[in-house]
Amino acid sequence: MPVQRFKLEYGKKFRLASIDPNETGSEHDREEVEAELKSLKEQLEALQNKLYAGKKQSVLFVIQGMDCSGKDGLVKHALGGLHPQGFKVNSFRAPTEEESAHDFLWRAHQIAPAKGMIGAFIRSYYEDVLITRVHNWISGEEVKSRFKHINRFEKLLESGGVKIVKIFLHISKDFQMARLRNRLTDPTKHWKFDKNDLVERESWAEYEEAYEAVFKHCSSESAPWYIVPANHRWYRDWAVLQIAVEALESMNLAFPESDPELDLILEKLQE
Amino acid sequence: MPVQRFKLEYGKKFRLASIDPNETGSEHDREEVEAELKSLKEQLEALQNKLYAGKKQSVLFVIQGMDCSGKDGLVKHALGGLHPQGFKVNSFRAPTEEESAHDFLWRAHQIAPAKGMIGAFIRSYYEDVLITRVHNWISGEEVKSRFKHINRFEKLLESGGVKIVKIFLHISKDFQMARLRNRLTDPTKHWKFDKNDLVERESWAEYEEAYEAVFKHCSSESAPWYIVPANHRWYRDWAVLQIAVEALESMNLAFPESDPELDLILEKLQE
Repeated sequence: MPVQRFKLEYGKKFRLASIDPNETGSEHDREEVEAELKSLKEQLEALQNKLYAGKKQSVLFVIQGMDCSGKDGLVKHALGGLHPQGFKVNSFRAPTEEESAHDFLWRAHQIAPAKGMIGAFIRSYYEDVLITRVHNWISGEEVKSRFKHINRFEKLLESGGVKIVKIFLHISKDFQMARLRNRLTDPTKHWKFDKNDLVERESWAEYEEAYEAVFKHCSSESAPWYIVPANHRWYRDWAVLQIAVEALESMNLAFPESDPELDLILEKLQE
Repeated sequence: MPVQRFKLEYGKKFRLASIDPNETGSEHDREEVEAELKSLKEQLEALQNKLYAGKKQSVLFVIQGMDCSGKDGLVKHALGGLHPQGFKVNSFRAPTEEESAHDFLWRAHQIAPAKGMIGAFIRSYYEDVLITRVHNWISGEEVKSRFKHINRFEKLLESGGVKIVKIFLHISKDFQMARLRNRLTDPTKHWKFDKNDLVERESWAEYEEAYEAVFKHCSSESAPWYIVPANHRWYRDWAVLQIAVEALESMNLAFPESDPELDLILEKLQE
């Protein structure tokens, strides 16, 4: 199973440094992988069709990663083939005043994918144990408490038929700098540049630690984290499509049973 | 301008019967049109990128048509290349209890596209002057009153920077029957079959009249209706892509002005 290599083993100690962000797998070259992308996308679209038709389960992709790790691009290039009617993307930014007036999972709950739907969170409720932790906006006690709330929240979503697929796009610090420079030199990308990314970059090591804590405390058999080497876009897209296809395949999706009356209706129409 | 032919002339009397749903244009054959689709999609995606970057305006596609006219398919095949992060699709079904407890535009207003976004309504608030009218759920007086509310509502959206593009997918009654049969014979499409479509079909002429009234009372220079012959999917997709590209081109979209500080930041990074 090619997907297993990305899946974090539940309960096992893990360091981000143990995975090379430049990895592109040993058995495939770029050309082979790109040829496979089309077929993977078709598989995913066919599975989405069954999910949508069945209206019994849903899927939530939680997409995390450092600034410039390619979260937006992933949604376009790996998941962009999904039927837009059944695919809702939400980006998590700083909470609004209304959102801040509730518990930290309130806004995520409101936009959880309904039955039949695929949702993608670009950033997510995990930010509430990442940026908040790195900047000491919340205490260590509070962080631990939030881990528990997150785990229970994910169980609740699962009880409602949501398959949760958590993806961490793993890039190197050098790769981030190259992307930041690119945003500064290409005038059509200036709007993507955020001065604050340079500030957050100073805390790279602290973010890695915060992520490692998330991986340790918020992984489960049913909602594991996948660590995807993301310095190479083609490999990243291929990896995530593999993960997505396997996730939907595991859900035993099926078209709903046909109404036995349909045959009769058809006969009448053909008279 | 190829798009002009689909655009309803404001204030001019119009009968749906005057347009052939089988039309595929005289100057292009299928092969030429399909070759153009790719380039139109790329143009639309580039325009969407500017819209998203600028965050000053938004676009709303209102997609109407009889049952089986291909509204869902249009969203997938013509608009499916849009970046999912900036594209939100909403299907209008029978209103929920909460929605019914408000005025008929309340639910549409809540999901109007935010600045930078493209929205698509599959069916829309126009259902409230179509199905409701055909079945006499509301009085003729109420219909007229709703036309006015719709016009004022669209002006309000426009005041907030929304470009409204209203598309009617025009199919023939025979075409609908072929699609219905197809849903009955193909087991993977059984779930799409709705017995009620056969009931509504009985009121084909009344629906045409109701639509003609909508075209007459709810068209404006800035938010016109486009009547798209839709018996042929390839032509339908091409027409809508043309309309979409022209609509976004008319908005004078531009990347936001670059922060003059960026040069300095880049210099520092390169030291």
